[in-house]
Amino acid sequence: MSLLYLDYNRTTPLAPSVLEAMQPYWSTHYLLPGQQHAHAHAVSEALENARESIAAMAGCESFEIVFTSGGTEANNLAILGAVGVAEPGHLLVSEIEHESVLGPIKGLAQRDPRWQVEVIPCRPCGTIDPSVVESMLRSDTRLVCVQGANAVLGTIQPVREVADRCHNHGVRLHCDATQMFGKVPVDIKSLRADTAAISGHKFYGPKGSGAVYIRRGLKLDPITFGEPREMGLRPGAENVPACIGLGAAASLAERFCSSPSDQLAGLRDQLIQRLYELMGDPPIVLCETTERLPNTVALELPGDARRLAESSRELAIASAQTSSPPDEFTRSLRAIGRSESEIGRTIRVSVGWTTSREQVDRAAELIATAYDC
Amino acid sequence: MSLLYLDYNRTTPLAPSVLEAMQPYWSTHYLLPGQQHAHAHAVSEALENARESIAAMAGCESFEIVFTSGGTEANNLAILGAVGVAEPGHLLVSEIEHESVLGPIKGLAQRDPRWQVEVIPCRPCGTIDPSVVESMLRSDTRLVCVQGANAVLGTIQPVREVADRCHNHGVRLHCDATQMFGKVPVDIKSLRADTAAISGHKFYGPKGSGAVYIRRGLKLDPITFGEPREMGLRPGAENVPACIGLGAAASLAERFCSSPSDQLAGLRDQLIQRLYELMGDPPIVLCETTERLPNTVALELPGDARRLAESSRELAIASAQTSSPPDEFTRSLRAIGRSESEIGRTIRVSVGWTTSREQVDRAAELIATAYDC
Repeated sequence: MSLLYLDYNRTTPLAPSVLEAMQPYWSTHYLLPGQQHAHAHAVSEALENARESIAAMAGCESFEIVFTSGGTEANNLAILGAVGVAEPGHLLVSEIEHESVLGPIKGLAQRDPRWQVEVIPCRPCGTIDPSVVESMLRSDTRLVCVQGANAVLGTIQPVREVADRCHNHGVRLHCDATQMFGKVPVDIKSLRADTAAISGHKFYGPKGSGAVYIRRGLKLDPITFGEPREMGLRPGAENVPACIGLGAAASLAERFCSSPSDQLAGLRDQLIQRLYELMGDPPIVLCETTERLPNTVALELPGDARRLAESSRELAIASAQTSSPPDEFTRSLRAIGRSESEIGRTIRVSVGWTTSREQVDRAAELIATAYDC
Repeated sequence: MSLLYLDYNRTTPLAPSVLEAMQPYWSTHYLLPGQQHAHAHAVSEALENARESIAAMAGCESFEIVFTSGGTEANNLAILGAVGVAEPGHLLVSEIEHESVLGPIKGLAQRDPRWQVEVIPCRPCGTIDPSVVESMLRSDTRLVCVQGANAVLGTIQPVREVADRCHNHGVRLHCDATQMFGKVPVDIKSLRADTAAISGHKFYGPKGSGAVYIRRGLKLDPITFGEPREMGLRPGAENVPACIGLGAAASLAERFCSSPSDQLAGLRDQLIQRLYELMGDPPIVLCETTERLPNTVALELPGDARRLAESSRELAIASAQTSSPPDEFTRSLRAIGRSESEIGRTIRVSVGWTTSREQVDRAAELIATAYDC
């Protein structure tokens, strides 16, 4: 079956140059950095070069980057590692966070009732209000979690404004930045987050790769234990090919995002324009006036999104899934005030670096056909 | 620099057929199992086939296998997940376990003093005594951890006898089986462990791959949180290529270990014999009369092991590292009563499937030259 892939916010294919960078580390340079051989030292050097590429992409120092097995582990380590060194208290988390942020926060409160969780509301425009966050801070607030950009709506959150308000009260901010890399330039130092999560497979890096940014001097506890690796924060044999791949993807992302061309936004806007041209009852663009990721659009269609799935088996997009508890898709749309029937009519389209204008036109035709027949 | 690799217990190169099995999942079948497209269903099927291959190698059901990012995470999940569902109490761990077993046990006790840890001693023959384990069990013992085989000495532990004694007292047994796969046939059901750890890169699978066996019906808590995956025990986007690679490596290991030939033991014994022929003062084979992994030998040489490192930059073997706390190498040798000077003279040689007789001869020559000149 052919595949018209417009679901890049969920996962991306590995970039060919990333695969190429990884290949020698499977069967040729297969030693681990800690082994007693010169080959191992060479591997260690390659790993540190990869760490530097990630730091360059993220705008931080390489010693502030800890490799993980992905974005979920990065969020868990940043959150559970931060609370591990703190007295139980108050936690603030935005309601449109990914499960890997909400999960550890809620898991913690379930295990120890001394942790109290409050949820930061999202405005209909798709962003949280920094002054609301500030008003919710308490003297015992230990951590605030606010994502960089929402995966469903694409809305970019005011992380820096939230961070400044948190820091004024001596509170740490964790930022799940996984949806930003490879789409917009990210400068973690400007965002002023204390910790941030990075996921390789969201920007053409390998699945099973990720990293957490930890601001210099910040203390975290590890969440798993073993041979001390990664500054004592992440034990276990290094997944060398994944680390090298993450580094290669970071170099690509840095180059792609620093170019002035607005390729991704152009493709997204072309899709919207074509739908307006083709459909008698065109879709509503959610959070249209809010600053959003250039590759992402949430569209409310004139009928149930399942109609699209039935009529076009070619197109890969995201829509609401029936799951309990509700997933990020449903939660994000509920948070901005959409009704259940509106949520059922909504799709999220996310384009990628290799999406073509022809693919966008074809997608628009498939969508228009599904709703106009 | 050329590499005469005899350190297969530390890590192995990826087998070419494993790499081949993984390749399509990077850039062609890159969807995640949960995505809304037929391509994703195909990926999901491939993942379940890989799980079945692992179950076939390990002698269990596929629904008893949970994918992890490696052996360290597998040990952590089995241990911390088991204690998560238990009242604080008593824990028993053998003194020759890997850091990823000792680490979570000790980490737990440090965080919550209601957990009491006792260490099971190792006999000079390199194995623990099941009756000693039984004598150490208490009414509040929650978990016993005993490895399948020691990485340094190669000694195979009496897991089944320990498991039976634990079960008679209603106590769970976790087995770090990471050193067994690909070297000896493993039948987890016969070992009777309740949980067991598997690490892909120890048997020609990818780094960053692993699994934990969880006996049917056993309850564990997850240790990280996010989108529910792997029966709710391991969240995060599936590392599909790693899972496929682990499955392919399991198929190879099952085939290799079921063949009657004693290829690994033949190479190991050839090395010992050559050293006896070449050296005026031949090495002592540690735990020589104990049942051991066929690929592993710990050799006590007539002089400091650093002499070997200096004289032969070609050979990759394992020897004592100065680290605090002491690593598995030093701990295992101390446990069987070796002195610090004896430990400093000891190397661990571990051969692999592709080690040749010529390589073994060359290694023997290099060792003999280093100590006879």
